[in-house]
Amino acid sequence: MALEILGERPCFGGVQGSYRVASQECATPMRFSVFRPPQAQTRRVPVVYFLAGLECTEETFMIKAGAQRVAAELGLMLVSPDTSPREARIPGDDESWDFGIGAGFYVDATQAPWSANYRMYSFVTKELPRVIGANFQADVERQAIMGHSMGGHGALVCALRNPGEYRSVSAFAPIVAPSQVPWGEKAFSKFFGADRAAWASFDATALAKGSGFAGEILIDQGLGDKFLRTQLQPEKFVAACDGTRIAPRLREHEGYDHSYWFIQTFISDHLRCHAARLATER
Amino acid sequence: MALEILGERPCFGGVQGSYRVASQECATPMRFSVFRPPQAQTRRVPVVYFLAGLECTEETFMIKAGAQRVAAELGLMLVSPDTSPREARIPGDDESWDFGIGAGFYVDATQAPWSANYRMYSFVTKELPRVIGANFQADVERQAIMGHSMGGHGALVCALRNPGEYRSVSAFAPIVAPSQVPWGEKAFSKFFGADRAAWASFDATALAKGSGFAGEILIDQGLGDKFLRTQLQPEKFVAACDGTRIAPRLREHEGYDHSYWFIQTFISDHLRCHAARLATER
Repeated sequence: MALEILGERPCFGGVQGSYRVASQECATPMRFSVFRPPQAQTRRVPVVYFLAGLECTEETFMIKAGAQRVAAELGLMLVSPDTSPREARIPGDDESWDFGIGAGFYVDATQAPWSANYRMYSFVTKELPRVIGANFQADVERQAIMGHSMGGHGALVCALRNPGEYRSVSAFAPIVAPSQVPWGEKAFSKFFGADRAAWASFDATALAKGSGFAGEILIDQGLGDKFLRTQLQPEKFVAACDGTRIAPRLREHEGYDHSYWFIQTFISDHLRCHAARLATER
Repeated sequence: MALEILGERPCFGGVQGSYRVASQECATPMRFSVFRPPQAQTRRVPVVYFLAGLECTEETFMIKAGAQRVAAELGLMLVSPDTSPREARIPGDDESWDFGIGAGFYVDATQAPWSANYRMYSFVTKELPRVIGANFQADVERQAIMGHSMGGHGALVCALRNPGEYRSVSAFAPIVAPSQVPWGEKAFSKFFGADRAAWASFDATALAKGSGFAGEILIDQGLGDKFLRTQLQPEKFVAACDGTRIAPRLREHEGYDHSYWFIQTFISDHLRCHAARLATER
């Protein structure tokens, strides 16, 4: 698991870096970016993972979200992985913008040919935290996870399936019920095949009832988001949390769309929520 | 001067927009981007222009600098034009990354074929402010200008030549003496011909002595910037201001490079300086 440093630059008194690792889970090199806050020069700091959406890379969040300023203030390490394998090519992986390259959906595929490399769930929840813990001043006992759109769903699934690993989770304009919307149906039918029972283990709305995750989940959603009614439908997740210890806090924002202009407007609120939960003893 | 709206999105309670105008000065369409802070919904607000560097577009600053948050707090409109004409093609305009398209240098070229379209100085100082004043809630009596690298130089020249138009100017890693460095020599020899006397009217270091500009000019420079010694040399401008009413405040930052990671780290300081000068009565 040797880490290849692709570039490191000072930023807000910390370091903004790009890296590549030979992923065991994905059986191909995977890229990710890390912002180390200045506090990491002297102590291990909590980590917030950000999972980006369709078509994005490991750079998108770091360039467009304006998150480093607040992370430097709060002493949070930010980690954003790429959205899919890229170097292991599979026939059809670049035929559509919403499936395959740039669209890994943070699941462990079970169907050939995708199952060989599309293991983003295990990469994000198991391998990447080990890489981060081994190479950076990260306190891997204090992790949070967040994401946008496809990555917002990824964050929900990672946290709901691993409540012991993530103290906090939030999302921007997440897909919440992939089994019930076109983006999810397209991806899951290829990654998992036709058996919809298999889809449920990677569907946040299906997972809510049985999850041990407890606490608030901040979800920001723009009401000018063109994907809101067709692909996102956050109210499905809110309804599924009814009667659980999950407390979704859905904030709806008039006019805001699906872009990083929306994310940068509210990123500070998310990081402050995570910092508060990461600061408490368990 | 009809304004074409290419896109407008909510951001920090204001609006992030992209526009195109049929420029008279450049005799070709020119693009620019505007961030309108929430305060512009109810009153005319001061304007800060940002001139970007080589290879950038009207989007680069808006996407990468993280400036909107502070601009929204301070009630500043941000305007960033493209770095050159693009739609009027001239033979050789895309042969190098540091001349022509993406590299207009914010001058009024006098030599054919460039003189027909490469009039970025007049576009930025005359035409664009008229467009902004006519189409947005901008207080064009309260303008500041800033920029990065080639655009840092452009900002200095615009302010030094028009002290009555710009109350405040600042720069990130600016070229300061184009007549004396390779980037400038290459561009100016094409835009102005071999007569170096003509170059002086668009050279910030040459302009300092005769300028009526008075007051502090904040200049941030990374000491890890690979262009510092060959192309930038800010000390030349500082020396040229000696004995004038210009007070350059050169801040040198250990390790920081020439990127927007550097700019976003210090953008807040610049906007706060501009806001303070724009708030005062003349």
